[in-house]
Amino acid sequence: MKDIRFDLSGLMAEHIGPEAGLSANEIRDGLARGTSASDWIRKIRKEGKIGFLDIPSDKAVADRIAAETARIAPAFENVVVLGIGGSGLGCRMLQNALLPSYANLRDRAARRNRPRLFVYDNVDPAEFEGLLSAAPPEKTLYNVISKSGTTVETLAAFLLVWDRLKKAVGLKAKDHVVLTTDPLIGPLREISKEEGILAFDVPGNVGGRFSVLSAVGLVPAALAGIDIRPLLAGAERMAARCLAEPAEKNPGIAGAVAHVLFASRGRAITAMMPYIAGLRQFSEWFAQLWAESLGKKKPGGGHAGLTPAKALGVTDQHSQLQLYLEGPQDKVVGFLAVDERECDVTLPAPFPGKTALNYLGGATLGGLLDVERRATEAAFRDVKRPSWTLTLPRLDGESLGQAIVLFEHMTAAAGHLFGIDPFDQPAVEIGKRKADATLGKPGSDPKMVLPPAAKALPGGWVV
Amino acid sequence: MKDIRFDLSGLMAEHIGPEAGLSANEIRDGLARGTSASDWIRKIRKEGKIGFLDIPSDKAVADRIAAETARIAPAFENVVVLGIGGSGLGCRMLQNALLPSYANLRDRAARRNRPRLFVYDNVDPAEFEGLLSAAPPEKTLYNVISKSGTTVETLAAFLLVWDRLKKAVGLKAKDHVVLTTDPLIGPLREISKEEGILAFDVPGNVGGRFSVLSAVGLVPAALAGIDIRPLLAGAERMAARCLAEPAEKNPGIAGAVAHVLFASRGRAITAMMPYIAGLRQFSEWFAQLWAESLGKKKPGGGHAGLTPAKALGVTDQHSQLQLYLEGPQDKVVGFLAVDERECDVTLPAPFPGKTALNYLGGATLGGLLDVERRATEAAFRDVKRPSWTLTLPRLDGESLGQAIVLFEHMTAAAGHLFGIDPFDQPAVEIGKRKADATLGKPGSDPKMVLPPAAKALPGGWVV
Repeated sequence: MKDIRFDLSGLMAEHIGPEAGLSANEIRDGLARGTSASDWIRKIRKEGKIGFLDIPSDKAVADRIAAETARIAPAFENVVVLGIGGSGLGCRMLQNALLPSYANLRDRAARRNRPRLFVYDNVDPAEFEGLLSAAPPEKTLYNVISKSGTTVETLAAFLLVWDRLKKAVGLKAKDHVVLTTDPLIGPLREISKEEGILAFDVPGNVGGRFSVLSAVGLVPAALAGIDIRPLLAGAERMAARCLAEPAEKNPGIAGAVAHVLFASRGRAITAMMPYIAGLRQFSEWFAQLWAESLGKKKPGGGHAGLTPAKALGVTDQHSQLQLYLEGPQDKVVGFLAVDERECDVTLPAPFPGKTALNYLGGATLGGLLDVERRATEAAFRDVKRPSWTLTLPRLDGESLGQAIVLFEHMTAAAGHLFGIDPFDQPAVEIGKRKADATLGKPGSDPKMVLPPAAKALPGGWVV
Repeated sequence: MKDIRFDLSGLMAEHIGPEAGLSANEIRDGLARGTSASDWIRKIRKEGKIGFLDIPSDKAVADRIAAETARIAPAFENVVVLGIGGSGLGCRMLQNALLPSYANLRDRAARRNRPRLFVYDNVDPAEFEGLLSAAPPEKTLYNVISKSGTTVETLAAFLLVWDRLKKAVGLKAKDHVVLTTDPLIGPLREISKEEGILAFDVPGNVGGRFSVLSAVGLVPAALAGIDIRPLLAGAERMAARCLAEPAEKNPGIAGAVAHVLFASRGRAITAMMPYIAGLRQFSEWFAQLWAESLGKKKPGGGHAGLTPAKALGVTDQHSQLQLYLEGPQDKVVGFLAVDERECDVTLPAPFPGKTALNYLGGATLGGLLDVERRATEAAFRDVKRPSWTLTLPRLDGESLGQAIVLFEHMTAAAGHLFGIDPFDQPAVEIGKRKADATLGKPGSDPKMVLPPAAKALPGGWVV
């Protein structure tokens, strides 16, 4: 297996000058603090408090998922994931990276006899109608994913499809549903027992945003025909590296140290810009991991956090790049690249007289992407703004598995360096309690019921 | 026509306290400065330097687009837009908001006999192959959009499809292409004349990111069956309001004043969170408009700019919300809402014994979205963080046209308040010159050619 390559050189004072770049001393001191983050992660892992570094090596889980999904997938035209946040983003990232981009559009043979994959992670009625139209229930397997089994948006969608399945003639509703939830508790686990529905487990010590390599991400991936073994092998390799390497050689520590150092200099935005369309959803997955893990009140007062910004090369060279190069000095930009592409397309020169177009003949689309990325990286050095590049040998399971664990470990380590708990999300409870009370959830606090919707607040500013 | 409603009350000290909120005095002084922005916009409009406030009322252009697209659309199964940045984002926004979300997946009758619409705004070879597979050239009309006619990514895609069309048996390549470009100059305009290809104009005084209501956005929208007249009527209404109203009643000034005031307090991130899936791409369109217009070096030194962050309700309540509520005090969050939904879905209660699920029976998906948005708005007030809400009477052309011009005007005004030119994008030239030279573009500077790609810089930091 080839290692992925995390090049942080574009963050260094030697390359972008002392004003924006990190000096050798800063990096050395930062890595010394990084060692404490490393120690902390090893400790809580040993105590069993975190599972994300160990799930990739659980062969029994992988074997069961591979066997069960191979058994049930052939009967369905579609797999629809009902899951939100960490129960949807990871699945979409795996689909985007490891299935051909046209897999949902072409005939079944082109998909190697596997179902199409959809992720429904909202409760918008127009989208729900669209989903039923694209994936009719009688041809569809629903993978309902909620660790607690109480996620209101996921339950709402589940109620709708269960009702339709029950009313459909000639099918057994329970055969069209797979549940992924806590192994012991919650309404979804209860229903799986009462109705005899196949269920997979989310380990108790793996939180939603760290769960893509548990059944949460692996079951839908395997149903859609992704080979989960190289993915897990890559993940296992990176977990081993992050647990074993000293801070200066440890990608999951170096990245955390660099970003936390830049945060203290007012660079609290992390922009991620893949130059490969198959990693577009990787940025979305990372955005949750980074935002929800690090955006916290600090115990001693003040606020930690790094705001993810999402861009795509080359598309966003025509959108966000102007801001990144000349706007406020509040960002670190990360590029994602590949050494080798699965396929490439050579440009023809069909207008012989036109020099303004003709010079492109013989270039390839992939070559164009690479030149544009290298030109953008060089532009960042020219204007002395910090950037890093993560390069995957190719866009495959082994590389992606490594990248996933790298960013998970980096996020956990950054949380420790900020002095906050990267594994909770206390603030989302504020609105949740109001919504639950307003919806009349049993046990909710009646004092939290929202007042009726008014057109505007009294004394407001409405234009 | 009903007006859209821009509620800025959640930014006021009266509602979120004096530390985070704007005082009545600040707002009054800000609006006084806003008047100068208003005067400046009126002045450069009269001088003919900007066209975005006038294109919605150009009936001749709208009539020609409606007539030509009605004539050519029926012959095609697919319309593929080849355009990047402002030549792709606006089209995708119109598609997302004004066509049913399943229009690309169902049969032709369900699309009222109109073609499916795809926007290809990258040069990734894997995506290009997917596009050819989903939309075979012989059944496809390509709308190639580049104001200058020199956009390298768009030209590369055009060369590929032109070559395939020329080689296809039994069709005329020129009948499968529509060009949208400068009325007078550039390689695409030359080709349109030489080959006899139908072409539409991008007015000289309308820049890419302000061009969605020119032929750039209107031609593909009309081809796919969107009625462009209500869209233009809504836009015309908002242009008239922004040009006529005094600052305190002017949505395009009030929004600019508020965001620039917050920027001076260190809140330089603008997060947009639609609670309606049809406005998901509105955030992407706005991100370019806001980022590329405002992210500039200030003439007197320093850097202006507001960084767009994109989120979607309710999905991102499970991703970005924790950061927005507890992370650094560096954001203003905007919610997008609708008063009335096109359709809604009532939840059943198919598990009679289960109180943990049953309480949702009788609620609707749209109602759930609204309660969650109101709960989130209330949470922002609880934690004293600034937010605004833009409400559309419904998601239709009239409302969307108003919202488009509101944000265009707001962006132009914010540029003036920052003291920068909101209509240029000088920094993107840095990387472009390097890429052009490396690709061997005629007339490019050979000194800008990139060195061969190296695995890592000497003295680098690679882990």
